[in-house]
Amino acid sequence: MPAEFDFIDWLRRRQPATAAVPVPAGDDLAVLAALRPDDLLLVGVDQVLQGVHFDLSQHAATDVGRKAMNRNLSDCAAMGCLPAAAVLTLALPRDAGDLAKQLYEGVEAAGAAFDCPIVGGDTGSWSGPLAVTVTILGRSNGVPPVTRQGARPGDGLWLSGPLGGSILGRHLTFTPRVHAGRTLASLGVARAMIDLSDGLSRDVRHLCRESHVGVEIEADAVPIHADAKSLAERSGKPPLHHALHDGEDYELLAAVAADPAAEAVAITAGFMKIGRFTADMGQRLVRADGRTESLEPLGWEHRF
Amino acid sequence: MPAEFDFIDWLRRRQPATAAVPVPAGDDLAVLAALRPDDLLLVGVDQVLQGVHFDLSQHAATDVGRKAMNRNLSDCAAMGCLPAAAVLTLALPRDAGDLAKQLYEGVEAAGAAFDCPIVGGDTGSWSGPLAVTVTILGRSNGVPPVTRQGARPGDGLWLSGPLGGSILGRHLTFTPRVHAGRTLASLGVARAMIDLSDGLSRDVRHLCRESHVGVEIEADAVPIHADAKSLAERSGKPPLHHALHDGEDYELLAAVAADPAAEAVAITAGFMKIGRFTADMGQRLVRADGRTESLEPLGWEHRF
Repeated sequence: MPAEFDFIDWLRRRQPATAAVPVPAGDDLAVLAALRPDDLLLVGVDQVLQGVHFDLSQHAATDVGRKAMNRNLSDCAAMGCLPAAAVLTLALPRDAGDLAKQLYEGVEAAGAAFDCPIVGGDTGSWSGPLAVTVTILGRSNGVPPVTRQGARPGDGLWLSGPLGGSILGRHLTFTPRVHAGRTLASLGVARAMIDLSDGLSRDVRHLCRESHVGVEIEADAVPIHADAKSLAERSGKPPLHHALHDGEDYELLAAVAADPAAEAVAITAGFMKIGRFTADMGQRLVRADGRTESLEPLGWEHRF
Repeated sequence: MPAEFDFIDWLRRRQPATAAVPVPAGDDLAVLAALRPDDLLLVGVDQVLQGVHFDLSQHAATDVGRKAMNRNLSDCAAMGCLPAAAVLTLALPRDAGDLAKQLYEGVEAAGAAFDCPIVGGDTGSWSGPLAVTVTILGRSNGVPPVTRQGARPGDGLWLSGPLGGSILGRHLTFTPRVHAGRTLASLGVARAMIDLSDGLSRDVRHLCRESHVGVEIEADAVPIHADAKSLAERSGKPPLHHALHDGEDYELLAAVAADPAAEAVAITAGFMKIGRFTADMGQRLVRADGRTESLEPLGWEHRF
């Protein structure tokens, strides 16, 4: 218990009152200043669990903290909103020593990169393994949130970066595409958007299902990360396989109208076109020679 | 994984879009409608952990879910705010069967009692024990939040209900004092407020420390719950000991000015006066015969 109270005192020194957070952590709830009148509030939560999303025997605690925050920031990116604040919950193994502070510093640093302060939280210790849970608040600040529901047949399928092989380390060190997502949203270019956490083949289905459309992906257009190539050498599978099916890329996948002005915005924001939405339901992969095959999601397996 | 997706489909059927939550769970983030312009947003989080806050071998999962939500609603009560929405995070043991649905139903029922819908969440399974985390959003709706910082020397110390022995079962079945807290806050009567989670002797120190005051508690004025008396028969300690030091009462403790009109409001809201704040720092217990002793917090031990 002394360690827990020491940690709470340490936390409070790091969370002074500000104009945006007049009552920070240390009271029963944190109090945030009023948003602008038309501001929509967004909220979500993501946990990272020892043995599922990280392994403390391999990964630094600060990186685990970063990942916990960055997964949430990636959700803000996918909605095109501005991160506003986060609360952090730690379920710590007993005798965790400095683990809590290292985790906190990772979460804090990742949030600071996108002006997202930690404003509260809950810390407890138990006989279970480490669980790190970040709840994020976002705000629309004048830009309608982008859901998964607006893709139309004929829209292009656009992607913010190369895919595959994140298990080699990138799943801990990625940068959430907050600016790219906000750019598409604020210029009214993204009709639907999602971030890729479970793999392209799986997550594109969410866009299709919610928008009641199908999709064709051009195999040759999918950008393959160098990590996918490295992993392919070990796995014996083609690099494209890893790009299509691996999880934890945290790139954005967006529906953009087949319109030159919209496409120019997407290109400027760093997106590339990898396919198109169709009235035909189903997900298809189009090979360079024109052959088309069904793109089945291979369950991304939690791998630690 | 099929079980997880079945659960998510089940969740989504329970979380239709509403005027207040135009985009509920199922997208990257939930979207809440704009608050009224002067509305302050409050946020906090509380986790309940297997073996610390509950024991599934003794306790029904719906009760565990209720507790997870009610602890958060109790934080809203302590700030005098209105509960607005919650997100639920479950770290489930593998092969948990219907556990997730039972937990959800408990959380949902507890929230519904105070118009607090579940708007999103995260569910994962792992090799660890069950962790249930609720993040709550509250809104001020025209009433300034009550912090721990406003108690002044001479103010009365007021309590919303009898204390002690919650371990006999009340820690799972309590009703958070949302209405009582809101009444004191909205009538401007609570200068500082906290909910009792770690025991009177410990939590009153938070009010004292944050408000830079001391406190005297009248031993004879402290209402003792029947559970404290039952527990005293087993423990051999006086019932007052359990009332002063046991945890998880979830009653409210408030500073109210020594003014007849303010006191009348507190009485009407169900509070009783158990002592007074002092300029002298320190926490003291005053016995019926006038003897005064230092009131030391006995750490409430997690007991499962």
